[in-house]
Amino acid sequence: MFPYKTSITLDRDSKQPLYLQLSNQFILLIKDRTLPPETKLLGSRTLSEQIGVHRKTVVACYEELMLQGWVESIPQKGTFVHSCLPELISQNFANNEHIKSNENVGFTFYKNEILNRTLPSTDADYIYVNDGLSDGRLTPINELARTYRRVTAKKSVVQHLSYGTTYGNLQLRDVLAKYLHETRGLKISRENILITRGSQMGIYLSTQLLVKNHDIIIVGETNYSAADNTFQYHNANIKRVPVDENGLSTNDIAAYCKKYTVKAVYVTSHHHHPTTVTLSAERRIHLLNLAKQYKFAIIEDDYDYDFNYSHAPILPLASHDTNGNVIYIGSVCKTVAPVFRVGYLIASKEFVNEAANLRRIVDRQGDALLELAFADFIKSGDLDRHIKKVMKIYKARRDLFCKLLKSELSDFFEFEVPMGGMAVWLTLDIQYSWALVERIALKNKLVISGWERYDLFDVKHNAIRIGFASYTNDEIIDFIEALKITMIEISRKLI
Amino acid sequence: MFPYKTSITLDRDSKQPLYLQLSNQFILLIKDRTLPPETKLLGSRTLSEQIGVHRKTVVACYEELMLQGWVESIPQKGTFVHSCLPELISQNFANNEHIKSNENVGFTFYKNEILNRTLPSTDADYIYVNDGLSDGRLTPINELARTYRRVTAKKSVVQHLSYGTTYGNLQLRDVLAKYLHETRGLKISRENILITRGSQMGIYLSTQLLVKNHDIIIVGETNYSAADNTFQYHNANIKRVPVDENGLSTNDIAAYCKKYTVKAVYVTSHHHHPTTVTLSAERRIHLLNLAKQYKFAIIEDDYDYDFNYSHAPILPLASHDTNGNVIYIGSVCKTVAPVFRVGYLIASKEFVNEAANLRRIVDRQGDALLELAFADFIKSGDLDRHIKKVMKIYKARRDLFCKLLKSELSDFFEFEVPMGGMAVWLTLDIQYSWALVERIALKNKLVISGWERYDLFDVKHNAIRIGFASYTNDEIIDFIEALKITMIEISRKLI
Repeated sequence: MFPYKTSITLDRDSKQPLYLQLSNQFILLIKDRTLPPETKLLGSRTLSEQIGVHRKTVVACYEELMLQGWVESIPQKGTFVHSCLPELISQNFANNEHIKSNENVGFTFYKNEILNRTLPSTDADYIYVNDGLSDGRLTPINELARTYRRVTAKKSVVQHLSYGTTYGNLQLRDVLAKYLHETRGLKISRENILITRGSQMGIYLSTQLLVKNHDIIIVGETNYSAADNTFQYHNANIKRVPVDENGLSTNDIAAYCKKYTVKAVYVTSHHHHPTTVTLSAERRIHLLNLAKQYKFAIIEDDYDYDFNYSHAPILPLASHDTNGNVIYIGSVCKTVAPVFRVGYLIASKEFVNEAANLRRIVDRQGDALLELAFADFIKSGDLDRHIKKVMKIYKARRDLFCKLLKSELSDFFEFEVPMGGMAVWLTLDIQYSWALVERIALKNKLVISGWERYDLFDVKHNAIRIGFASYTNDEIIDFIEALKITMIEISRKLI
Repeated sequence: MFPYKTSITLDRDSKQPLYLQLSNQFILLIKDRTLPPETKLLGSRTLSEQIGVHRKTVVACYEELMLQGWVESIPQKGTFVHSCLPELISQNFANNEHIKSNENVGFTFYKNEILNRTLPSTDADYIYVNDGLSDGRLTPINELARTYRRVTAKKSVVQHLSYGTTYGNLQLRDVLAKYLHETRGLKISRENILITRGSQMGIYLSTQLLVKNHDIIIVGETNYSAADNTFQYHNANIKRVPVDENGLSTNDIAAYCKKYTVKAVYVTSHHHHPTTVTLSAERRIHLLNLAKQYKFAIIEDDYDYDFNYSHAPILPLASHDTNGNVIYIGSVCKTVAPVFRVGYLIASKEFVNEAANLRRIVDRQGDALLELAFADFIKSGDLDRHIKKVMKIYKARRDLFCKLLKSELSDFFEFEVPMGGMAVWLTLDIQYSWALVERIALKNKLVISGWERYDLFDVKHNAIRIGFASYTNDEIIDFIEALKITMIEISRKLI
């Protein structure tokens, strides 16, 4: 006789009904062959007495097992474990009380080293160097949450709750068409806009549609590493051209075009990532002309258009594109807060259609409610007001950061004061290495990780990108202090 | 002399400053060579008088143009259009007042017919047949918006506003691990969970990692069309096995395994999509054993686990998976409302890690605030209460829909009352065609579109999936009435 009393444990505090707890335990016993096929189960009265539950609970459990096909009832004979259940090979069921994460994989799959990138964990005691993040503490979270609440409180919201368009909320597309026209001179209508989850999705979708099968894409010799990863993952044939103080070398692009079929050029025209330089007017026109002549796509990633401290931002390539060569990618993440995953991909109607079709199988559609809230946030002028407010703060942070870099650390580093953006391109004196700086800085609670990604192709510029926008003035002072102590220690060692 | 007065129009109501409007118009004139290189610009006083703006506006405009590199200032001589600007090939700039969507594409890209799927537009006068949508009107939108507000009002929210983990919010993963254990017997920890944007993203990521290069994936002879599209887009070698009243034929799967290397099996075990049948206990065990033996992945898409009207839902395959063969995919979309794009992919730690790495280049990360709100919504029991509430409503709708189908339309259709889910698998008498039904139904304001997708492989079951859950009782009565009028008209014609 099977020892039901000791084998079955019921949790009367669980929200799961007792009969279900009981039937789930029966299923485990049946599956691991503790109760093999054709075993006769106890009568409901007997079992209920043995395990101390109401008889109705046992009856409900047996009905459940019957409905699920684990047991069968034979009239006048009783309830039996189903006769035709095959044996489950493994009997090594984990105990409910000791849930561990499953470490096994029972199949093979495609792994890709390119995707592998460990991120540092965080600890409040340390200062973490980033490549140009905004400051989450400046997020207009209350305004946005209020807008979200207002949008969801409307009766008309019901039309947005089911599946909607893959292109993104219509109101947001209309608002954006107007906003991007006014702020960046883009001549577009809603048909040219696909709302994405941010710039990265725009890069991903464009890459899927452009650079399969070892197609050539041209990028800077230094380039935004997440874009690089995306192209590499897609087996693009990546050609790298020099980047100087005027941005990508368009003459080198022209030379490649003469030799090869170039599929696309990826450019962060407003501030080159990572070196922060602006693509000059001359090269902009040259690049657009090349694209027209050689029929390649320009993926223009305008990740920090809004942040320019000295003069108005230069209009993007997309505002001069009359031939449908530019795929213009941007987001509201940097401007408002990375957590709000709303961005856009802007291109000719035909390309937008195909990108939307692809996006349909990637994640179906965006968050229509958040998109509505952002339409409202832009339309009301709240976004503009927010940008004006944080611009002043970020400019002051840039000024302080660069002033201190210059006064405290000019023996070790060189840099140009960036005209915009949220980061400085910092060149370390050639006698030192970032590997050493990382190691010593860590002792001073300054975490400089991932510097390797700025020179994967051995240009030996010995520089990395360091964000300043996410730190308050006090934090900037601490940062510079920690870096100074680090450098002094290193220079003493080297003597 | 260039007619500035008539060529330049300024909008004093625009929020763009006048000097920027002016400089943007200069840029257009420079780019289209109306003002060719080395043209001398008017002095600021002269221009300001001609176009009627303050002289300071013109000075600011010229400074802007200089900073952007469009003009240069030569001491003692004046301001000139920059001498080394190449000519932009096209001069066909659209007029700001007549913005049209850009129809050109200046490059080639990969188009894929598989992605092409037109969706019907909607009109309130018509009843649209769907394949099993929930009713947006039942969304607990106020509770959710309140939860979202509560989450965003906390001081601690600031830590969630910057970039976060690609795996999804930690609190939601912990809450889900517990919830999925209690409701479906899954023995998992947070490391086994990747938060996605919904089931479709889970299918997409799994496919990218599993079925490149013509790998074999097995699906039902009838299958969920969005999954089919995803596999086809990835050039999978799709093998189809019969589906009967017990679900996928596992014997046919076994036969394929003997002949070929099978990479994955896609299964909607709880209710087969589209036919609504449940995979039997016997076949579940058979399938798990085969996966273990032949080392293939089971993609278990449990899209409607929560909706079972006759008995408790059968535990998913994933709850019996001890060998790491199952990739379990689900979402909260169906349960709450499709607009909330929160889902999960559950698998062995190693597979989850790779899926998270891939997801990083797809859309970087999810919406941490919405994820926090859902953690709260699940933890508080609100989700359970919501499910209990809508289950009763959907069960009543199923009962009414099936009762009327039987009493009014049994001359034309056959069906089984589904045990769960939100749709009926409706077989049309073989003497009629869905093409004809679609055409006549449209006259009766009933839109039946996309029926072709249920029999792409010529099984000739003459059946389609019809959702009932999204209609109120009155709408169900109207639906049946319109379908009845349609069928009577068709049968008269055929006589």
